[in-house]
Amino acid sequence: MAERGIDWLLLGPSADLFYLTGYDAHLSERLNLLVLPADGEAALVVPTLEAPRVGAASELAPLQVWDDHERPAELVAQAIGNLANERVAVGDQLWSAFLLRIQAEVGGGAWEEAGPLLRDLRMVKDEVELAALDRAGRLTDEAWEEFIAAGPLSGLTERQALRRLVDLTEQRGLQGMWGICASGPASASPHHATGDRTIEQGDAVIFDWGGTIDGYFSDVTRTVHVGEPDAEFRAIYDLVRKANQATLDAVRPGVPCEELDRTARLMFEAAGHGEAFLHRVGHGLGLEVHEEPYLVAGNDLPLAAGMVFSDEPGLYFEGRFGVRVEDAVVCTESGGRRLNEATRDLVVME
Amino acid sequence: MAERGIDWLLLGPSADLFYLTGYDAHLSERLNLLVLPADGEAALVVPTLEAPRVGAASELAPLQVWDDHERPAELVAQAIGNLANERVAVGDQLWSAFLLRIQAEVGGGAWEEAGPLLRDLRMVKDEVELAALDRAGRLTDEAWEEFIAAGPLSGLTERQALRRLVDLTEQRGLQGMWGICASGPASASPHHATGDRTIEQGDAVIFDWGGTIDGYFSDVTRTVHVGEPDAEFRAIYDLVRKANQATLDAVRPGVPCEELDRTARLMFEAAGHGEAFLHRVGHGLGLEVHEEPYLVAGNDLPLAAGMVFSDEPGLYFEGRFGVRVEDAVVCTESGGRRLNEATRDLVVME
Repeated sequence: MAERGIDWLLLGPSADLFYLTGYDAHLSERLNLLVLPADGEAALVVPTLEAPRVGAASELAPLQVWDDHERPAELVAQAIGNLANERVAVGDQLWSAFLLRIQAEVGGGAWEEAGPLLRDLRMVKDEVELAALDRAGRLTDEAWEEFIAAGPLSGLTERQALRRLVDLTEQRGLQGMWGICASGPASASPHHATGDRTIEQGDAVIFDWGGTIDGYFSDVTRTVHVGEPDAEFRAIYDLVRKANQATLDAVRPGVPCEELDRTARLMFEAAGHGEAFLHRVGHGLGLEVHEEPYLVAGNDLPLAAGMVFSDEPGLYFEGRFGVRVEDAVVCTESGGRRLNEATRDLVVME
Repeated sequence: MAERGIDWLLLGPSADLFYLTGYDAHLSERLNLLVLPADGEAALVVPTLEAPRVGAASELAPLQVWDDHERPAELVAQAIGNLANERVAVGDQLWSAFLLRIQAEVGGGAWEEAGPLLRDLRMVKDEVELAALDRAGRLTDEAWEEFIAAGPLSGLTERQALRRLVDLTEQRGLQGMWGICASGPASASPHHATGDRTIEQGDAVIFDWGGTIDGYFSDVTRTVHVGEPDAEFRAIYDLVRKANQATLDAVRPGVPCEELDRTARLMFEAAGHGEAFLHRVGHGLGLEVHEEPYLVAGNDLPLAAGMVFSDEPGLYFEGRFGVRVEDAVVCTESGGRRLNEATRDLVVME
């Protein structure tokens, strides 16, 4: 903060707060807020009924507890005092209602995003973080191998199929499970909301899922085909898989993030499918499923050893099918190393 | 908006957005935003890869689609144009990073919370909403009755016990499940994070859980005792149950929200336990588990027929035990009607 000339940092419930304090605050209409000055004593503003959850974080920042009938923005304003043009960095995910209330109560200040400040702390993972990410990845892979051996998909709804996969993953000790199952034409929608469509012969089915070990996420995507695929599907699958490999091969410290996106994009464009690549090639992975660094055109941030991100090229053909193959990758001094090794061969299921 | 002199409304992924448009937008670092003028044409700013999810909402507001390498705040600024002192209401839960980026891009404007505007639309439920809430409540009750008949709690971890209850509820067709299980001393922490503590003889165990029917939540709390409770626990349980009933009895149109909180609080204070009532007596329930109206000291908003809220007095004794009994209640012309009827008798389990 001192290096950047930031005077105050305000963080609500978020991975940022958890990273700095270990406090996994409950996200709700009740304000939880870390008020951290560059110089001086911090305060942790918490609702009375959540004070028992704070734990050891209360040793880092004295608690300012507020009851339900009180106005916590007043406590924040008291902690901050009078501002002229001091710079106040606000956690990216703090709800706007809290920011507006605090601004009204404090008056003054130059308000900015805290994202860039926190990013530099969180992007490069240390050994403990890497061990958790590694383990989350490996256990998620194991769940996939069991899932594809477990029997037919056709006849299950998307929700049922996803539930089976998520349960297999959770049984291995992961928490905070999340997932997408997109089947048939819906596989052409990268962020499809898993529904009650029944999976049938001829479907491409995309599974994109994960969970946490010690708070750190896995994030894997595999695409299977139900029944024998035609030559077109096989060719697209092969192309996506090659783009996944080429993206991995481009990883090394110093390479700009956007270069990885460009690698996959050029391959798709060369094959005449540039328009079908609807998203960036990847995103950082850690305490959040999506976090910095983003592997996207326009991001010239250089990769550094210890950064962990997804490698997830995909092609989407509206009304027909989609294919995505995603692994988590860590950048090491000698290049990219995958955290996922569940088979990337085309899996044909019944 | 015209009545309140609000010129623009900006809503990100939220129950507010879903309520107005039916679009269940994905909450992430990619901006989804409804830009709604009091007068003129709306715009729905969405990421390319999520455009297939928008569905019929695109008939209400033309889509402004942005690719991953673009800056969506620019699209928002183009849709809004130049502002002088026009009032811009911002959805309560929009991430601060988006608000700050949009403010920087737009310049000008008087920015305020959209909560009060949306509250008036969402608080009073219509018949379709009430039917969903009613059904969610009844199915959650049924799950509870099966859960307490299903066998011993002692020996299960909190996580295992909660999973059993949540599964029984989900099997009845609810979605979006959530829940808390707090056992033994942890039951004295109203927002305890469910953990791996093993439930044992002598524990009070609080279950607070629910899920959705058609997007509308149930929210029930029951407290059981594992093994025969002593006279003190029975007396506290009886007191909490009476406060739950008294709160219900105080419901009628025109009564200020804070009066319900006061009803329970006075009873606890009269019994010498005012200090152990750590939270407000209730909160609105609908598309969110917590929403307006809040039943809290200082809220003089009058109840109206069709409002739905929790009735959840509780007493918490640090390091020892807690008791909470919670039902959802709808305010009708003739008074309060519970949406939950799972037994409120003290349940003793093994």
